[in-house]
Amino acid sequence: MMLVNGTPATQVSAQDRGLHYGDGVFETLAVRDSRPLLWEKHVQRLRMGCARLGIPAPADALLASEVQQVCAGAAQAVLKIMVTRGEGARGYRVVPPVHATRLVALYPWPAWPEAYARQGVRVRVCDTRLACNPALAGIKHLNRLEQVLARSEWEDASIAEGLMLDTAGHVIEGTMSNIFIVRDGRLWTPEVDNCGVAGIMRGVIVEFAARHAIGCGITGLSLQQVREADEVFLCNSIIGVWPVREIDDVHYPCGPLTQRVAVYAAEMMQACQSNF
Amino acid sequence: MMLVNGTPATQVSAQDRGLHYGDGVFETLAVRDSRPLLWEKHVQRLRMGCARLGIPAPADALLASEVQQVCAGAAQAVLKIMVTRGEGARGYRVVPPVHATRLVALYPWPAWPEAYARQGVRVRVCDTRLACNPALAGIKHLNRLEQVLARSEWEDASIAEGLMLDTAGHVIEGTMSNIFIVRDGRLWTPEVDNCGVAGIMRGVIVEFAARHAIGCGITGLSLQQVREADEVFLCNSIIGVWPVREIDDVHYPCGPLTQRVAVYAAEMMQACQSNF
Repeated sequence: MMLVNGTPATQVSAQDRGLHYGDGVFETLAVRDSRPLLWEKHVQRLRMGCARLGIPAPADALLASEVQQVCAGAAQAVLKIMVTRGEGARGYRVVPPVHATRLVALYPWPAWPEAYARQGVRVRVCDTRLACNPALAGIKHLNRLEQVLARSEWEDASIAEGLMLDTAGHVIEGTMSNIFIVRDGRLWTPEVDNCGVAGIMRGVIVEFAARHAIGCGITGLSLQQVREADEVFLCNSIIGVWPVREIDDVHYPCGPLTQRVAVYAAEMMQACQSNF
Repeated sequence: MMLVNGTPATQVSAQDRGLHYGDGVFETLAVRDSRPLLWEKHVQRLRMGCARLGIPAPADALLASEVQQVCAGAAQAVLKIMVTRGEGARGYRVVPPVHATRLVALYPWPAWPEAYARQGVRVRVCDTRLACNPALAGIKHLNRLEQVLARSEWEDASIAEGLMLDTAGHVIEGTMSNIFIVRDGRLWTPEVDNCGVAGIMRGVIVEFAARHAIGCGITGLSLQQVREADEVFLCNSIIGVWPVREIDDVHYPCGPLTQRVAVYAAEMMQACQSNF
């Protein structure tokens, strides 16, 4: 089911700036028992993204009501929320008034093998790089060609995710996930100041580490540092945590810290800690 | 008038990957007396963009027939062609078969002041930078947030265009145009190997220079080099050539080489040299 500006629909205006320029932002949430998980955090990032792009964000109550309508009866599903700058005339210039387009849509829960979460996943390093632009870094905007090209690099179904470096050679994230490494009992995850998405589950894990006195650094990470890591895992709001068992030819154990974080993520996603 | 996959329409599927990821390319052409100008060159770039992104390009005859239908009776207008990777399931992965979406639309001719072409335009230097990514450089893809943000930087109607630098500080292009400078009787235009669009009119001017033994270099250009130029002009398929009379506080004359190129561009756009 999909609502476009509150109305059940399957189409959007062909003049929408989301289509013409990728002029908008989106969120992807896990839904359990009719409720979107980590609701406040996703809404907060959506608002931040809208603010960065200068797009009027939808009112909380309106968005919540549409989300409730779309999620009703869903035992387990994926919710996608998109906000674009709405219809526009030809040209990059924004001509006020802006009537943002809201898209609230429910998708089937992806059928990933259970082994991904239990035994870990195989990952490859992508050739496609992430360009560095602080103006667009961190937010979940609709300019996603780099991810599309990176995900097109492999068809081997046994590879679950691709790791993306930026053009300067830093490891940044997976095509659809953030990455953490463990070294000497500490967590490290790449900074996303120049490119990459500040993932919600990434933020949750950083917070978890802080509350449990687990060292956690946000830093620049080289591929060599990832190769030499004791443990590696991926995360996002849908998968929770996937231990990484292999990146190209380097193997990792599903170690104690990864397991601890994975259990926390899974519990949180089972318990529906959403205040929605 | 707009055709979506050959049918008059005002909407596209809300599952189109053009909307979700900016997963597509576009072209903008001038139309005179029902004919799109520089047709072959635009189609060639569209095909190159589709090839780079791995999107099946529409058949020549099909596209031409739709363009003819849309342009019929238009004395002067702007034609926009968009090709996206079509509808997709959620996620970056491309699941074959791909049925690309074709959008062919006619827009009013923009009402720019006549003085722009005759006396030149005022230009500002934008704060928003272009990120460097060779994988996406040159083609006219739908990830255009950098241009949107740059164009949002000013509202002063007396400023016609904004100049964009890349994150390394090189001058690359205007938000909607390419730039040439003149120095000691030679033309220079920025290379677009790392970012920027390989504009059709830019290519036409490079070719014109070569055929008339005018020195023309494609190179990295600094803002200082632009400031010290004898003449500066902008170009694209719709405006032809606009002399630049001012960039921030630096003034330029509408000099002899700019005038020569501008006359050529204007003649070409009047004469409808299209083989369409």
